[in-house]
Amino acid sequence: MGSQSNNQMKVVQGEFGYVLEDVPHLTDYIPDLPTYPNPLRSNPAYSVVKQYFVHVDDSVPQKIVVHKDTPRGVHFRRAGPRQKVYFASDEVQACIVTCGGLCPGLNTVIREIVHSLDYMYGVNQVLGIHGGYRGFYSKNTIPLTPKVTNDIHKRGGTILGTSRGGHDTMKIVDSIQDRGINQVYIIGGDGSQKGAAVIYEEIRRRNLKVSVAGIPKTIDNDIPVIDKSFGFDTAVEEAQRAINAAHVEAESAENGIGVVKLMGRYSGFIAMYATLASRDVDCCLIPESPFYLEGEGGLFEYMEKKLKENGHMVIVIAEGAGQELLDAEIQNAKNEHDASGNKLLQDVGLWISQKIKDHFTKLSKTPVTLKYIDPTYMIRAIPSNASDNVYCTLLAQSAVHGAMAGYTGFTVGLVNGRQTYIPFNRIIEQQYHVVITDRMWARLLASTNQPSFLGPKTGQVPPTQLLDDGDEKTCN
Amino acid sequence: MGSQSNNQMKVVQGEFGYVLEDVPHLTDYIPDLPTYPNPLRSNPAYSVVKQYFVHVDDSVPQKIVVHKDTPRGVHFRRAGPRQKVYFASDEVQACIVTCGGLCPGLNTVIREIVHSLDYMYGVNQVLGIHGGYRGFYSKNTIPLTPKVTNDIHKRGGTILGTSRGGHDTMKIVDSIQDRGINQVYIIGGDGSQKGAAVIYEEIRRRNLKVSVAGIPKTIDNDIPVIDKSFGFDTAVEEAQRAINAAHVEAESAENGIGVVKLMGRYSGFIAMYATLASRDVDCCLIPESPFYLEGEGGLFEYMEKKLKENGHMVIVIAEGAGQELLDAEIQNAKNEHDASGNKLLQDVGLWISQKIKDHFTKLSKTPVTLKYIDPTYMIRAIPSNASDNVYCTLLAQSAVHGAMAGYTGFTVGLVNGRQTYIPFNRIIEQQYHVVITDRMWARLLASTNQPSFLGPKTGQVPPTQLLDDGDEKTCN
Amino acid sequence: MGSQSNNQMKVVQGEFGYVLEDVPHLTDYIPDLPTYPNPLRSNPAYSVVKQYFVHVDDSVPQKIVVHKDTPRGVHFRRAGPRQKVYFASDEVQACIVTCGGLCPGLNTVIREIVHSLDYMYGVNQVLGIHGGYRGFYSKNTIPLTPKVTNDIHKRGGTILGTSRGGHDTMKIVDSIQDRGINQVYIIGGDGSQKGAAVIYEEIRRRNLKVSVAGIPKTIDNDIPVIDKSFGFDTAVEEAQRAINAAHVEAESAENGIGVVKLMGRYSGFIAMYATLASRDVDCCLIPESPFYLEGEGGLFEYMEKKLKENGHMVIVIAEGAGQELLDAEIQNAKNEHDASGNKLLQDVGLWISQKIKDHFTKLSKTPVTLKYIDPTYMIRAIPSNASDNVYCTLLAQSAVHGAMAGYTGFTVGLVNGRQTYIPFNRIIEQQYHVVITDRMWARLLASTNQPSFLGPKTGQVPPTQLLDDGDEKTCN
Amino acid sequence: MGSQSNNQMKVVQGEFGYVLEDVPHLTDYIPDLPTYPNPLRSNPAYSVVKQYFVHVDDSVPQKIVVHKDTPRGVHFRRAGPRQKVYFASDEVQACIVTCGGLCPGLNTVIREIVHSLDYMYGVNQVLGIHGGYRGFYSKNTIPLTPKVTNDIHKRGGTILGTSRGGHDTMKIVDSIQDRGINQVYIIGGDGSQKGAAVIYEEIRRRNLKVSVAGIPKTIDNDIPVIDKSFGFDTAVEEAQRAINAAHVEAESAENGIGVVKLMGRYSGFIAMYATLASRDVDCCLIPESPFYLEGEGGLFEYMEKKLKENGHMVIVIAEGAGQELLDAEIQNAKNEHDASGNKLLQDVGLWISQKIKDHFTKLSKTPVTLKYIDPTYMIRAIPSNASDNVYCTLLAQSAVHGAMAGYTGFTVGLVNGRQTYIPFNRIIEQQYHVVITDRMWARLLASTNQPSFLGPKTGQVPPTQLLDDGDEKTCN
Repeated sequence: MGSQSNNQMKVVQGEFGYVLEDVPHLTDYIPDLPTYPNPLRSNPAYSVVKQYFVHVDDSVPQKIVVHKDTPRGVHFRRAGPRQKVYFASDEVQACIVTCGGLCPGLNTVIREIVHSLDYMYGVNQVLGIHGGYRGFYSKNTIPLTPKVTNDIHKRGGTILGTSRGGHDTMKIVDSIQDRGINQVYIIGGDGSQKGAAVIYEEIRRRNLKVSVAGIPKTIDNDIPVIDKSFGFDTAVEEAQRAINAAHVEAESAENGIGVVKLMGRYSGFIAMYATLASRDVDCCLIPESPFYLEGEGGLFEYMEKKLKENGHMVIVIAEGAGQELLDAEIQNAKNEHDASGNKLLQDVGLWISQKIKDHFTKLSKTPVTLKYIDPTYMIRAIPSNASDNVYCTLLAQSAVHGAMAGYTGFTVGLVNGRQTYIPFNRIIEQQYHVVITDRMWARLLASTNQPSFLGPKTGQVPPTQLLDDGDEKTCN
Repeated sequence: MGSQSNNQMKVVQGEFGYVLEDVPHLTDYIPDLPTYPNPLRSNPAYSVVKQYFVHVDDSVPQKIVVHKDTPRGVHFRRAGPRQKVYFASDEVQACIVTCGGLCPGLNTVIREIVHSLDYMYGVNQVLGIHGGYRGFYSKNTIPLTPKVTNDIHKRGGTILGTSRGGHDTMKIVDSIQDRGINQVYIIGGDGSQKGAAVIYEEIRRRNLKVSVAGIPKTIDNDIPVIDKSFGFDTAVEEAQRAINAAHVEAESAENGIGVVKLMGRYSGFIAMYATLASRDVDCCLIPESPFYLEGEGGLFEYMEKKLKENGHMVIVIAEGAGQELLDAEIQNAKNEHDASGNKLLQDVGLWISQKIKDHFTKLSKTPVTLKYIDPTYMIRAIPSNASDNVYCTLLAQSAVHGAMAGYTGFTVGLVNGRQTYIPFNRIIEQQYHVVITDRMWARLLASTNQPSFLGPKTGQVPPTQLLDDGDEKTCN
Repeated sequence: MGSQSNNQMKVVQGEFGYVLEDVPHLTDYIPDLPTYPNPLRSNPAYSVVKQYFVHVDDSVPQKIVVHKDTPRGVHFRRAGPRQKVYFASDEVQACIVTCGGLCPGLNTVIREIVHSLDYMYGVNQVLGIHGGYRGFYSKNTIPLTPKVTNDIHKRGGTILGTSRGGHDTMKIVDSIQDRGINQVYIIGGDGSQKGAAVIYEEIRRRNLKVSVAGIPKTIDNDIPVIDKSFGFDTAVEEAQRAINAAHVEAESAENGIGVVKLMGRYSGFIAMYATLASRDVDCCLIPESPFYLEGEGGLFEYMEKKLKENGHMVIVIAEGAGQELLDAEIQNAKNEHDASGNKLLQDVGLWISQKIKDHFTKLSKTPVTLKYIDPTYMIRAIPSNASDNVYCTLLAQSAVHGAMAGYTGFTVGLVNGRQTYIPFNRIIEQQYHVVITDRMWARLLASTNQPSFLGPKTGQVPPTQLLDDGDEKTCN
Repeated sequence: MGSQSNNQMKVVQGEFGYVLEDVPHLTDYIPDLPTYPNPLRSNPAYSVVKQYFVHVDDSVPQKIVVHKDTPRGVHFRRAGPRQKVYFASDEVQACIVTCGGLCPGLNTVIREIVHSLDYMYGVNQVLGIHGGYRGFYSKNTIPLTPKVTNDIHKRGGTILGTSRGGHDTMKIVDSIQDRGINQVYIIGGDGSQKGAAVIYEEIRRRNLKVSVAGIPKTIDNDIPVIDKSFGFDTAVEEAQRAINAAHVEAESAENGIGVVKLMGRYSGFIAMYATLASRDVDCCLIPESPFYLEGEGGLFEYMEKKLKENGHMVIVIAEGAGQELLDAEIQNAKNEHDASGNKLLQDVGLWISQKIKDHFTKLSKTPVTLKYIDPTYMIRAIPSNASDNVYCTLLAQSAVHGAMAGYTGFTVGLVNGRQTYIPFNRIIEQQYHVVITDRMWARLLASTNQPSFLGPKTGQVPPTQLLDDGDEKTCN
């Protein structure tokens, strides 16, 4: 699939190294599609000012930290309403599906797709697919109207329900075809966007006039290219509660230690930003920065020092941090046929809490008081805050504008603060990680003064080292 | 001053239309300044990875919605730590001042300047100037240490106190000189940044080795060039409470009308974003979009329609909206020697509430129930949220990096998601406004379905019309 | 009406001065009503434990601060389920009406009446009366089911809508009779409870088998006998936001003054409790404690002293405080034919803010910075907090138990922490006020150190002085 | 100790069965102590109104649900300021200690003891004991002034630090004697109050003029006699977040199950009230109501039914619920030498989550999605809400009034809404539990419709059954 997609990558070259990585369009494989004037042109709100429409050549660069002689590089198509659309209002039969774990803002995106289709394009046939991908073929659909979706943005979760897996491309595309659906909005993470890409490929193979639009969803912010994923700000905000609580518990006890586990299986963005926002964290452990417990430059040495200085400390750990340490122990446990040991190892927060307690019980005379907090499900389930609400609204509107304009096989995303359309393969080809040689992580290290865990053991710069080319998220 | 500044504008030209609008540097007027290696180079957190330092040629474009043949345009210098600094750690005597109205995040910026100077650069002489500009010459200073500023980011307001006015350039620069201050951090709005520019000019005239760094502060988000001002997200979030309350009050009464006044004397960003985030607002009135009350296409007509349809409605009005209507009435009142009438006219929220009540009492048989909410001071005074805390941290760190590196006469700002140094005159030359022909306002109109107030009366496109060149804020 | 009610007051005497002020019962005027076993007896949750039912003689004393020889005094009937009920489940046609201003918890009470009737008593015919009393005769009813009311407690306001006035006894009772309604639940304040009493009298006059139950609602907590009104805790909690904001604003300015107006036209409970909870308030002004501005022992003298000491201060003022001062000014304004002056006098917060500004502008050389906050509608409109949710639930269940048991003409209320049935006339005969010679006000004075405003001018103890008989609210 | 205390119980008899269970007084064992007029008498706030002082005979009944012929029963002494005090202001050397786990409001109590002593009684020698009981003999004291405690009520935790155990009576009383302390304020739970009783006994044995006052602290609300413990309302409020999150997670998944563990080792008050407040809980499991998993009337049967009906459900479980089930399994594990199994059994939330997952994996074809939330430390660590702040203030003031008046060996507590002094032994003689045959639990059962778990297995009424004598908490 990947290579096929790459083959179909639409690339436009321009002056001084300009490259536009364009998204597919229905006319790429269905010639002679009729067009219609954008209904927005007769909308009283838009009618007087033609500039509401995006210029057909508008694009946004991916890389914007430049020198005076830097070539211009990769650009993406700017999102927004076009003068012409490729669907008549009453022709559209849209559907929306949410996949994967919860994330603040799902309901806002659903609401705004429905409202945008209705108020901006006069489309009033929108179906909700129930319970994720498998809902396409195993469940009834839910009719979505502006009225039923009117207040849902004030609730967490997703009114459509969600699930992992269940992706059966043929059954899904059959269902799309059978139900006469011609716009598919897929809100989901990494895996779901891959699924969306495959659905798009199959639809294209069948020559269907169906637009497939992805809205990337990941509370971990681990999707490449885009500035940040929706719900991320809300999650970081809510994580402050847990960190505050851990800090209060730690401060109130002698040798008090607060441990907070935050989301982030493969990337530590939430942990990093929550730490930067809080200023109460003494150590932040993320998957991208391997650490070790014992010996010089290790976690325990640092903890002993901190406890001696302040009498308490707070550790934030991303759920995927230290995985290599856990894996080693799991291997040991297996070798020792200690089946039960594995249980504990499934949760890095419980694991590190136990390790710390063991260490300080053994070593020091003054016992520690450790409190472990796992706020994961309390964070995922809250409604999105104002900033994420606006962001979700724009993503939804961009997706609708794109589908109506005949684009397909694209995901919407904020690139350097601008709404853009990005080809699926750019989103799914890799995961986005905290670059620990980059400035944001340095800012964190400077604020916590925690060890870099690079010292005596390895003596080496980690292999993830990159040029400081400014390819960092622009959340802030 | 303005022209003088412009004369001193440092401009670098590059290929394909590249222009760098650079910021001044101490060496521009003091030659042969000694340099020192950046202490960060021996900081354990930074030592192993050289890429933490910003490349001397890094710059960020102002305009990033481009076509394939668009020239590259204006760029700003990227903020961040440099390999060399122009101050020895024990030489630095820094001071911080906060000016103008309250804004969420002031204390975070103060805290982070103090902490960054100490932890990153080993500087431990930082003075707080008390009560705004006039504190330079009329008050004792407040010693600021990492310890005393440690928890202040959890409180609203500013621990330094603030005031408007009091800017006496000579006295201030005398005080700076007399106290041996050589780094001046000025946190303040439009007017205060102008003040900072004048201070910088005078310091330069006196040939002093003093860096002047501005951190722009405006809850209204009305500063040009930068993506958004700190505290803005927090303000929009907090405004939701007032809008929710207005909505509940309106819904619970027959012909219930909720009116919420939000900040924004000259620009309606808070009102616009709060409206977009809430989805409960039926009409948003801002200074940039003139409106009228009576007649076809007017506010009352729209209200009558909404009340008929839904039985209730919510209006958000920025404090500077409809100023031309108020001015006309004030003129009338003066002509009629009605001194007391002026009182009411000072608050557009009270004014419009009275107008609406008068209209519906007179006109309709079903009386309206109007509730007016002014949450202004409740919004300004809250602590910054997580997202703004991170933003404030980065602004403070950027300012410190810049001053240490010998830059002066600059303001720090986020441009397209990147921390940059911007010459003062680019910040103060004009105010930033909602462009009502731009897409964000169109998104709002589409979401509220309110009238554009452009119809029968004027029949014209408003004079603020601009090309849709993507010059919009990138908050979302 | 009053005397008639009193005549019908059912009083039971007991030993050692015991008096039970009982509530009316349908059998008082309709003999030979059939009874049914309480359906709760066959409810799995209740079936095994007979003690869930309240003993027929259970009562609760009004006065519980006693000496060893104090007679027992007035008691009220304890609320709760009875073994026998006077309505068959399918016979009941209930209705619910909400009257007067908003108060946190209205929706919870509505929800719980509906749910209690359904789940506990198998009653599924419940009507919502729309828009207050006038809805009985001028609007369609709203069918209320457990399903439609399931999530309403998470929203502020009232789903039924509300209004003031509109009480036309004959039309209302006609409507009750015509619609076949036989249980009337009236949620409303002082005036509405008076209305409920009249409706009950008329129903009794017509000999109808209709139970009338009141649930007292007043955000001001000014209803006598009962410990506190629902929504009060939530209101005090929410008021903290405004006080915090006022404090931050005051602290950040030189001679900063924060003024917060809180609810309380005739009684200052919210102002008093909000002050006690906050600890940031320097002066609390309530209707029950007259104050004066000028001269020795006056407000201005105290303010000058506080500003000198601390540089800032916060004043909380109940909306009905200082009414005698305003009345005097209004009289003056009338004499001077200054129609416009009256406007300002309608809001004590605006009035006192102006007075303070005038005083300090005139008198002192250092100008003050005054910020005025009126959070009234933001407080009224929020959903009830957990504590009020439980309280509302118990009130609703008590009302339902009472009506099903054939009691009528009663209001439910918490007396010394116990749910009771109280005859209407005890609730409506007077308003409950802060007793400024009582201990709670003393606690406040002790915490603010504000003047008692009793000094040189009057030299007298105020006329409201009462024996400290412990007749204080038990909220805390 | 217990019997000794009982022997010393001061009992006053009165008419019609009146009994006053009085608290000890310094004059009980030190005759001829000098008295002083209460300084409040010359306090401007109190001077004019004599009624601020509590009558020497004021008492409050414990039992207030009465019949007309019920004898009056046990009363407690009413708390409050007395006309005479037994300490001169400059003679007092007070100390404050906090013991046991965190609870919202600790800092407010500390603050208000310090402020009350200073502002009301002119006492300015107050010491904080650091880190619980062991701080008396192993740590330096912390000087407490109104200034240093001024803002602490806005923070969670305790500024004094806390710990469990460390109670060495002789060392503690030696320290009290050596340091010249004559007022000891002990804020702590069940165990700490027992410790306070022993300290009081030893002080009495040594004939010291030292008042010992307890302020009962237990987030679980499991202290008898008193209406509710401080921090309880705040805890129930904060628990709503976790329940809401569990509800959203459950709703968004197919067969979604949310499990929330709340505090309550021996009593389920928080779980019960949080369930009543939320209305989103389908089953609440507490220590007082034994349950079983399998078979008819068991938890699994109920869950299967609920999932079938609604597709999701929420379970709240107190940490001490089902302990007998866990104990049985632990016994099994021991017999099978499965050391590791014990780990899991230490947390009932993890245990029941695993049991549920196992059951549904085995049994049903549709797999469940279970999310487990443990918000314990996030609840304990928050600052107290407004209602608890007022409550803490009154408790602190009552304790100070009591100690100044020469009372000792008492705990302050709210009894039927009135502040009282209660002899230690009444507080420590037993724990307070949810009475599952009482009305509050019935209300919960009625609201959740969960099984009573009393059915086929036992066929019996549980042994905790009591007469419905109204001896229930009056929190609401």
